[in-house]
Amino acid sequence: MNLKDIKKKLLSGDFSSLLWFGEDKRKIHPTEVAKMLTALPVSNAIEAFKSLPTRTEVRVFPYLDHLLQKKITKAAAHERASYILNELSSDDRMNFFTSLKGVELSFFLDFLNEKNKSALHGLLGYPDKSVARLINTDFATIEKEVTVAEACEHLRKNHKDSEAANVIYVVDKDGKLIDDIPVRRFVLNEPEKKIADILDGFCISLKMTDSKEDAIVKFKEYDRVVLPVVNQENVLLGVLTVDDVLDVAEQRDTKEIQNFGGMESLDYPYVKTKFFSLIKKRAGWLVVLFIGEMLTATAMGYFDIEISKAVVLALFVPLIISSGGNSGSQAATLIIRAMALKELTIKDWWFVMRREIFSGLTLGLILGLIGFIRIAVWQHFHWYNYGEHWFLVAITIFFSLIGIIMWGTLSGSMVPMVLKRFKLDPATSSAPLVATLVDVTGLFIYFSIAAIILKGTLL
Amino acid sequence: MNLKDIKKKLLSGDFSSLLWFGEDKRKIHPTEVAKMLTALPVSNAIEAFKSLPTRTEVRVFPYLDHLLQKKITKAAAHERASYILNELSSDDRMNFFTSLKGVELSFFLDFLNEKNKSALHGLLGYPDKSVARLINTDFATIEKEVTVAEACEHLRKNHKDSEAANVIYVVDKDGKLIDDIPVRRFVLNEPEKKIADILDGFCISLKMTDSKEDAIVKFKEYDRVVLPVVNQENVLLGVLTVDDVLDVAEQRDTKEIQNFGGMESLDYPYVKTKFFSLIKKRAGWLVVLFIGEMLTATAMGYFDIEISKAVVLALFVPLIISSGGNSGSQAATLIIRAMALKELTIKDWWFVMRREIFSGLTLGLILGLIGFIRIAVWQHFHWYNYGEHWFLVAITIFFSLIGIIMWGTLSGSMVPMVLKRFKLDPATSSAPLVATLVDVTGLFIYFSIAAIILKGTLL
Repeated sequence: MNLKDIKKKLLSGDFSSLLWFGEDKRKIHPTEVAKMLTALPVSNAIEAFKSLPTRTEVRVFPYLDHLLQKKITKAAAHERASYILNELSSDDRMNFFTSLKGVELSFFLDFLNEKNKSALHGLLGYPDKSVARLINTDFATIEKEVTVAEACEHLRKNHKDSEAANVIYVVDKDGKLIDDIPVRRFVLNEPEKKIADILDGFCISLKMTDSKEDAIVKFKEYDRVVLPVVNQENVLLGVLTVDDVLDVAEQRDTKEIQNFGGMESLDYPYVKTKFFSLIKKRAGWLVVLFIGEMLTATAMGYFDIEISKAVVLALFVPLIISSGGNSGSQAATLIIRAMALKELTIKDWWFVMRREIFSGLTLGLILGLIGFIRIAVWQHFHWYNYGEHWFLVAITIFFSLIGIIMWGTLSGSMVPMVLKRFKLDPATSSAPLVATLVDVTGLFIYFSIAAIILKGTLL
Repeated sequence: MNLKDIKKKLLSGDFSSLLWFGEDKRKIHPTEVAKMLTALPVSNAIEAFKSLPTRTEVRVFPYLDHLLQKKITKAAAHERASYILNELSSDDRMNFFTSLKGVELSFFLDFLNEKNKSALHGLLGYPDKSVARLINTDFATIEKEVTVAEACEHLRKNHKDSEAANVIYVVDKDGKLIDDIPVRRFVLNEPEKKIADILDGFCISLKMTDSKEDAIVKFKEYDRVVLPVVNQENVLLGVLTVDDVLDVAEQRDTKEIQNFGGMESLDYPYVKTKFFSLIKKRAGWLVVLFIGEMLTATAMGYFDIEISKAVVLALFVPLIISSGGNSGSQAATLIIRAMALKELTIKDWWFVMRREIFSGLTLGLILGLIGFIRIAVWQHFHWYNYGEHWFLVAITIFFSLIGIIMWGTLSGSMVPMVLKRFKLDPATSSAPLVATLVDVTGLFIYFSIAAIILKGTLL
């Protein structure tokens, strides 16, 4: 089959014959099918999806992005859409429905059968941030009195060949979790052994209400790939696999990084985000920061007499405020990331504050010295004439840099902690917020120090 | 046992009796032991570690941080240290040795037996970024002609109860990978069946030389928890589990975030990093950026006559340049993250460039308008007097903002792509670099536009 044929088949929607394409007629993994579909224009993707065998549809669906999932479901016949949505694994179903809001949510809920609808309703009751939103409710349980052979028999009869059968959960009569057994232990132990004798006594679990971030920490700490999730009474309600947590960690970091960049985080990847929603996400914070920065014009206006007397002061304004901003972003970045990874809590504020004041002092001394030397060298070689009082100007720059950088590291480290204290997300535009704060107050520090040092000479 | 007793036991180094502490004498997970050890002063931690049973030592060791691992190994008797390092799983051993350099590396290599030493040497030959550095070389293989019952028998005889027995790899006589079987399939299928009949034909693998980033993408794409790693000849050499990838993803993101903050990434968590190495990591880029920003003083000096004629122009300098910087950081953040997640490659530069020019234009119009209104309103209500030519000043600000924000989004998006093109890490200080670039060139844009609009009036 040449490329032209492939293209023809794709455009005519005859997709399923392509799936056994290739010399060795090898099967194609659902994620690869999904990638191909995503690369097609939407209308063709919908047609191509329809041409898939129904079982394949169910397997490919979870790998599509939410936009395409919605369009495909809307375009499909009601019965077919209903079949797909009901056959999805519970975590994939949840993932799809979590992306929906309002009218859309109720529209798509109608496709579900009663059992799935009420299960989904129950889980949607938990907060967005909780692990309940990620769990798979399909899992294998066993009681501890049975033998390994009986347990195997039970598994064979009741479970299909899916990830859910990798770990078996031992529960009591009330469904309360006792322990977990990786299925390998059924193979590695003699069939006559009692389940109770092959338990290892280490059972780590998550609560439904635990935050997704806590789950990340727990998976990392215990090096697990799947963890059981229980309610307050320790009744097993679902399992959480690490690949979902990997997605969560990545989304958290993307959000954090985009917030650092001074913008709302995107809902879709950059390339998939429409132009105007991209502008919306960016304009909001840009306008807020712009309005904040307008205070610098006010502050500068406040010192306009000083500037007209000593234009030389204006020359260093960008240098001074950007140094404060840079040192502030550094501190904010360090603290926000350390808090996100739970290395630091707000209880450590005093440790952080002391540390950042001394960091600011040290960094300020370094930059202050460089600034001082810069002016002295330029003056000495007549590259620029800072006037007869150049030495006092250099001293002003020296002390201003120390003051502003200390103020930068201090506010950079404390603003995220204060935000966290008031239950706000410390990542939200902290870095640019800090930069703006430092810019405005930095001008006051600079001109005040100038007023003291240059009084009677330049001012 | 009360708290006082616990403290006493801890300080005296009698740690192991604490491990069965608690009402139900429950065993404590190695990670919890490691956490307790980490909380102790180093000398006590070393003593406490020594008091552990040797088997427990081996299990706790991988959960300690590298610093403590080194100190403990150095403090232990040679035989004991040698036992621990040889008994570690191969990925944990690699993890420890990867943290070492030069003399230290050869010092610790001496603890290993010949087999482990040569295996480690082989793997250390692969680049730091490759998955070879993360693999576990302990895995279970089987040939496809045997039956399920025989495979189970083989597993029972040759493998202990560890993660390595969760997935069994089917290889041919030369050790070339054919397929992987989750061990659950041994339980779910009849014992008489041939292995060849229970393969599903989907076998995803990684190459030893694949980058860790590629591995992250593959784990996410295929929703796997463990992947086989093969050499160029498709011979199975090891396996990679997703929890290691989770760590890699987190480290990558931490590095990226700290680079965004305009600093070198830390080797240890913030709280663990010593004061002076923290300063070192921060001062480097801060000085580079400072020296870059000194060009603003040069640029301003170039326009000092204009400033002394029209002090009003100086008032808006911080506002103008910070807007350029903010829009530049937004663009840089978006592009760097999208490239890190492989959503975007440098081939897409034209798409990105067009998009960012239009984004810059739109955002510039919005901010320009706000800036214009700000001046008009202040003038109208006599909150500040921008002089008789206030309208021209406002027009200058309007066009300058458009120009500078377009320049910001353009350079913010293109600088990371150019860095990537030259095989440099686009995350490295891109955002602050872009901000500095935009600050300096922004001043030229601003004063040039002012020169055109205000010629004959203010200038």
